[in-house]
Amino acid sequence: MLTEEDIQFFQKIINPENVLVSSLEKYSRDTTEQLEFYPDVVLKPGSAEETAAIVKHCNENLLPMTPRGAGTGLAGGALAVKGGVMISVERLNKTIEIDDKNFLVKVDAGVINYDLQQALSKKNLFYPPDPSSWQSSFIGGNVATNAGGSRAVKYGVTRSYVLNLQVVLPNGDLIWTGANTMKFSTGLDMTELFVGSEGILGIITKVVLRVLPKPENEISLLIPFKNVFEACKAVSEIFYAGIHPSALEFMEERAIHCTVDYLEEVNIDIEGDTAAHLLVSIDENIEQQLSICVETVSKFDIGEILFAETEAEKNRLWQVRRKIGEAAKACGYSIEEDTVVPIAHLAELVKATHRLADRGNFKVVCYGHAGDGNLHIRINHPKHKNSYNQPEIQKILNQLFEIVKSLDGTVSGEHGIGLIQKDFLPIVFSEANLNLQRTIKKAIDPKNVMNPGKVL
Amino acid sequence: MLTEEDIQFFQKIINPENVLVSSLEKYSRDTTEQLEFYPDVVLKPGSAEETAAIVKHCNENLLPMTPRGAGTGLAGGALAVKGGVMISVERLNKTIEIDDKNFLVKVDAGVINYDLQQALSKKNLFYPPDPSSWQSSFIGGNVATNAGGSRAVKYGVTRSYVLNLQVVLPNGDLIWTGANTMKFSTGLDMTELFVGSEGILGIITKVVLRVLPKPENEISLLIPFKNVFEACKAVSEIFYAGIHPSALEFMEERAIHCTVDYLEEVNIDIEGDTAAHLLVSIDENIEQQLSICVETVSKFDIGEILFAETEAEKNRLWQVRRKIGEAAKACGYSIEEDTVVPIAHLAELVKATHRLADRGNFKVVCYGHAGDGNLHIRINHPKHKNSYNQPEIQKILNQLFEIVKSLDGTVSGEHGIGLIQKDFLPIVFSEANLNLQRTIKKAIDPKNVMNPGKVL
Repeated sequence: MLTEEDIQFFQKIINPENVLVSSLEKYSRDTTEQLEFYPDVVLKPGSAEETAAIVKHCNENLLPMTPRGAGTGLAGGALAVKGGVMISVERLNKTIEIDDKNFLVKVDAGVINYDLQQALSKKNLFYPPDPSSWQSSFIGGNVATNAGGSRAVKYGVTRSYVLNLQVVLPNGDLIWTGANTMKFSTGLDMTELFVGSEGILGIITKVVLRVLPKPENEISLLIPFKNVFEACKAVSEIFYAGIHPSALEFMEERAIHCTVDYLEEVNIDIEGDTAAHLLVSIDENIEQQLSICVETVSKFDIGEILFAETEAEKNRLWQVRRKIGEAAKACGYSIEEDTVVPIAHLAELVKATHRLADRGNFKVVCYGHAGDGNLHIRINHPKHKNSYNQPEIQKILNQLFEIVKSLDGTVSGEHGIGLIQKDFLPIVFSEANLNLQRTIKKAIDPKNVMNPGKVL
Repeated sequence: MLTEEDIQFFQKIINPENVLVSSLEKYSRDTTEQLEFYPDVVLKPGSAEETAAIVKHCNENLLPMTPRGAGTGLAGGALAVKGGVMISVERLNKTIEIDDKNFLVKVDAGVINYDLQQALSKKNLFYPPDPSSWQSSFIGGNVATNAGGSRAVKYGVTRSYVLNLQVVLPNGDLIWTGANTMKFSTGLDMTELFVGSEGILGIITKVVLRVLPKPENEISLLIPFKNVFEACKAVSEIFYAGIHPSALEFMEERAIHCTVDYLEEVNIDIEGDTAAHLLVSIDENIEQQLSICVETVSKFDIGEILFAETEAEKNRLWQVRRKIGEAAKACGYSIEEDTVVPIAHLAELVKATHRLADRGNFKVVCYGHAGDGNLHIRINHPKHKNSYNQPEIQKILNQLFEIVKSLDGTVSGEHGIGLIQKDFLPIVFSEANLNLQRTIKKAIDPKNVMNPGKVL
């Protein structure tokens, strides 16, 4: 239990203005379903050293800690389910040190993905990972969830860019996990362990990322298919044809309709008989790859392709995709799952998901990063807005993940496990695997004070 | 201590012919310096389940185990420094299951990298990692050391391709670590923890890798520089110019000379005033990238560039690079270090290494994967052939790694730590980081029976 002495200690470490005990609405929610959990106190340290001092105190006094980024998570990883101390990295947002000679950048955990992109762009550099939340999510949170995004199909997820992390361990130790080098075979790779660890092993305070020279140009095309399953099949065909798309997104018809209807700023005409769209981007050998791509998809029953070359045209197409989550949630699809399967099983997954919904008397909408087999499935249930603590929804999700498992897939491709997916891990992991994960968690956080109640 | 009962147990699990207690010379060495350690027994299980049964027995009876691949390691990771039981995965070499629809392959740990490449090539697929040992090293060993190779500069190291691992844990549990999916944010990532773990956390028995469509063509060019430091500077310039080399190798003059003199099969003319070579490969937009590359390097003081387009021509150039390690070892450069620094510091590293050698009255030769900043430094010392247990050499290496550290680099880019590099970890890791690594090792292998005496 948090005491007055704890608060006084925190106020000594950081200014009292950064120790919040009231008006915590903002910190009681993230972007997961309609869930709400209040921490007892929110702390905003201004440095890694202050963070370490806070963590050490909480660990010694058995105070549960919830590390917090921008609160854009979709699995409840940053919710204070045990109350206690929320540690927000929002003030760790000063550093963006670009080393263009070595294609590296060192950033504070609280730097917004978008701000990093802008700073790099001025130096003609490029950090590919672009989760839908990129305009508000923090780099620290992106690393903690191993965030993906549309470009992952060509450029890989967040993990592919993380070279080194500054981390506060549950005991208050402040370490660098690795080295700022392109290759690393130097002991157990602690950097890789912390990527995707969702705050259960420690708090990320600084990140060293590798970056790339900026691609010269990129075009996008929106391809309407008359048949959902043909759209899924086209995904594999595009790869077979030798195309390296810089994005390859799938959207069911009802996902786009919902977005266009709900959001005034999204403006696109959809032919009446369209069942699904693929949104493809190409950023190399554009002329040649574009022509092969059009030839490949033209073998299927498609409508008129929309091409986008200018920034304005591309924004118009991409706004549909980027706003789907928000729009679908507003349209009642409040429960989101983040399944991933090998790409050739995508059509089967969509089909099985629809059958499940038909049988269960609820609605689903599917969209996502088809090029990676990463399908977001949103559920609109007549009775429930949340999956958490709702046995009826849990039963449906169990069936869904059993299907995913049977298609050689897994629970989450890019959102993480957090609070709401942890009960499904036994579907995809053996008890021995889960024991291994628990053993590691327990060894690093023996008092279970670091983001307790999450992941495992 | 190994007993007669242990041997009888092993003979029951696997056939007696796969339980070797004599003629173990082959298993007493790997490719590290001139070191020799004999195990008490070598076991060759024929399945993951047999491996698990052996491991369980050894763990219960406190028998030290040394996992063994092809014995091509350069850090002594597969040497039986504590005697005991060596577990060779050489008979786990039956499976190469290619799933070309999903760009996946499932392989046994004992499959040779070259054999995998050949099998994939027939399906027009491609697994990029190509350590120098690729014609004999096992995929399991490649994963255990996070092996690199020449293509890593464009395609990434082994880690970039590993999706899922079947692993025997020290307690005998047999698990799959992850999922066969392109994206994965599903709990603590055990796959990433086992990549590069050098057998200290368990034995890898099966590997699921992602693969790529095969690039259509590749050309190579060998560029002679009159000045070593200009060659290093050219490395950065090549990237700035927008080239995506599929290899970018650096070789000092004495490295090539040694190779050409020592190995009859290597045949290449070297102009008298050459100080170093860059060996560059290009496999996309060949015409355009080649012309930019030639223009870029022509700003430096270079000799005549050799171009290779046919397989025979490319083999001729690449044999020089591939055979350097073997030749340099035979020429007396028996001690090899595997340093890595950010690329812009490469010239400084070469310069400082030479100064160290001049002051210390020994010889060095530098070569390696310049595009990744991964420089192999071989030492020819008048008195010592090994670094292990040689205080005079240890002192030199301490100085070398202090230089590497001052240049923001680390101990090993692709060879691993194994036996001979572990004393240098405190130069690059804080005590708190090392404690974290030890905590994880101890939690997973509390009896310290799995590859004891290695890495930590």
